[in-house]
Amino acid sequence: MNRAALPTFAQVQEAAARIAPYAVKTPVLRNTTLNALAGADLYFKCENLQRGGAFKFRGACNAVWSMDDAMATSGVVTHSSGNHGNALALAAATRGIPAHVVVPEDAVRTKLEAIERAGAILHRCVATQAAREAKADEVQRATGAELVHPFSDTRVMAGQGTAVLELLEQSGGLDAVITPVGGGGLIAGTAIAAHGVAPQIEVHGAEPAGADDAARSLAQGQRVGPFTPDTICDGLRTLIGETNFEALRMHRVEVTTVSDDEVVAAMRLLWNELKIVVEPSSATVLAAVLKRPERFKGKRVGLILTGGNVDLDALPW
Amino acid sequence: MNRAALPTFAQVQEAAARIAPYAVKTPVLRNTTLNALAGADLYFKCENLQRGGAFKFRGACNAVWSMDDAMATSGVVTHSSGNHGNALALAAATRGIPAHVVVPEDAVRTKLEAIERAGAILHRCVATQAAREAKADEVQRATGAELVHPFSDTRVMAGQGTAVLELLEQSGGLDAVITPVGGGGLIAGTAIAAHGVAPQIEVHGAEPAGADDAARSLAQGQRVGPFTPDTICDGLRTLIGETNFEALRMHRVEVTTVSDDEVVAAMRLLWNELKIVVEPSSATVLAAVLKRPERFKGKRVGLILTGGNVDLDALPW
Repeated sequence: MNRAALPTFAQVQEAAARIAPYAVKTPVLRNTTLNALAGADLYFKCENLQRGGAFKFRGACNAVWSMDDAMATSGVVTHSSGNHGNALALAAATRGIPAHVVVPEDAVRTKLEAIERAGAILHRCVATQAAREAKADEVQRATGAELVHPFSDTRVMAGQGTAVLELLEQSGGLDAVITPVGGGGLIAGTAIAAHGVAPQIEVHGAEPAGADDAARSLAQGQRVGPFTPDTICDGLRTLIGETNFEALRMHRVEVTTVSDDEVVAAMRLLWNELKIVVEPSSATVLAAVLKRPERFKGKRVGLILTGGNVDLDALPW
Repeated sequence: MNRAALPTFAQVQEAAARIAPYAVKTPVLRNTTLNALAGADLYFKCENLQRGGAFKFRGACNAVWSMDDAMATSGVVTHSSGNHGNALALAAATRGIPAHVVVPEDAVRTKLEAIERAGAILHRCVATQAAREAKADEVQRATGAELVHPFSDTRVMAGQGTAVLELLEQSGGLDAVITPVGGGGLIAGTAIAAHGVAPQIEVHGAEPAGADDAARSLAQGQRVGPFTPDTICDGLRTLIGETNFEALRMHRVEVTTVSDDEVVAAMRLLWNELKIVVEPSSATVLAAVLKRPERFKGKRVGLILTGGNVDLDALPW
């Protein structure tokens, strides 16, 4: 699946129309205190308020409703540390088809509970990329379900790109946009969508220092190999996909790395100032903007807050 | 100030136009899990996302911009170490006039810092109601500032009523609306505004069992006297104002009391399902709706989530 084609801008626009009946047009928040801290005009796109509590519903929903009826009957399968699995379960439910979700043993408890509540069938495996893919293959062969990869899937990338389309319209235009970088579905879709609207928009990524494979890959000019992540950002522990990495290069995406301490400080700021619940992965974007004031100074910057699925009994402060 | 006239519906509409350039039109959130729990269609009006993190900005802003230029020059004064003090400071700043806030010696340092950050001049006094009122009188005489009472002020009540005007438009119509009841500025403004739009809308209040003066007053047919509050809901420890109580009777408001345990359970549900930060006072409305399913079953219910100012290091679970 890592060789899936990148979506075109037209495919992102089609995705927007396809998911409109099911996805939430999430609000954009602004805050004078955070603007003052950053020295920039910040527009926060609240995908934590999306169905399932994360942007992932967009891509999953686009994949589910892109399938023809014959293909859809057997359902869908994926491997996911949480938000994508939940999103695919919710998306499958909108079409009344089965969803199989392969989950690693170290996934966040609240996320697994949500996936089960959404009606998916869970399949557990050990917490390695290889084990996840092997288990998903197995389920796919046994059930005939269609694989919907969390990030290296054309339909998924197109769906994720719809968030920035809304953000550009809601904000009235941006100089730069920044998203977290994990497997790279969101950053790829965002880059294609943003540059489809206005080629001069700067596209930035934010990555935890303990999972900085995209930053290292860009620095080396080629995609690095598998690594052992060490970060609080449970949504960003994945190696960036091959196609996704190509999108970063094609669209001249700049990736800023941030420490877990910087992430937690930014997460507290978001909770305290915006009054919203965001998970650590979401806070990387604010941490990156605050870390490089010279880079963002005076600009209109869109920040995609990717999700809000946290365990309230295990907050990182 | 307790004898201030209730605002008319026209005054609420004027307030909406007056504060529109400064206040946030807060989003309305919906959630299938909470709808299923309640057996009703719930529309959550997110005033925790209002400027200053609470609906209080609406009333304060309406008061500040209702004054003529000569009157405004001397500024405004109030006694409140909580959300209203902060809101008045922010509102005064939008007009570039001074805000004096009388705060008791035992007020929480972080709250005082927030009020100072918003640009207010703090006046300390000892921590009794009499001392606060005396100090506010003193500041008023010394500076010529206009007193803006937290809830027994016509302009403040009119401003608070603007939230439900927006909610009715955003939801496409409601069968019932529910707000927390403290001093009664929000419930009075809400009742007047809702019945101005549609007289058949049921108006409900939610009160903590440890500060149930409005419920007891309604049961006895007359306003009870001062009491010692015992509740986690720090925004609702006030005795309801005289005029505010009259509004409850005139508009046949039904008040439901909820325990602090019910409030904390509802607060967790709001954080987990809506992905927003709300303070305990806000959660009373969901607690009340969940406590009386027979009363709200099948209805379109608007719930005003009043604020999101909590100490992240002292969460009640």
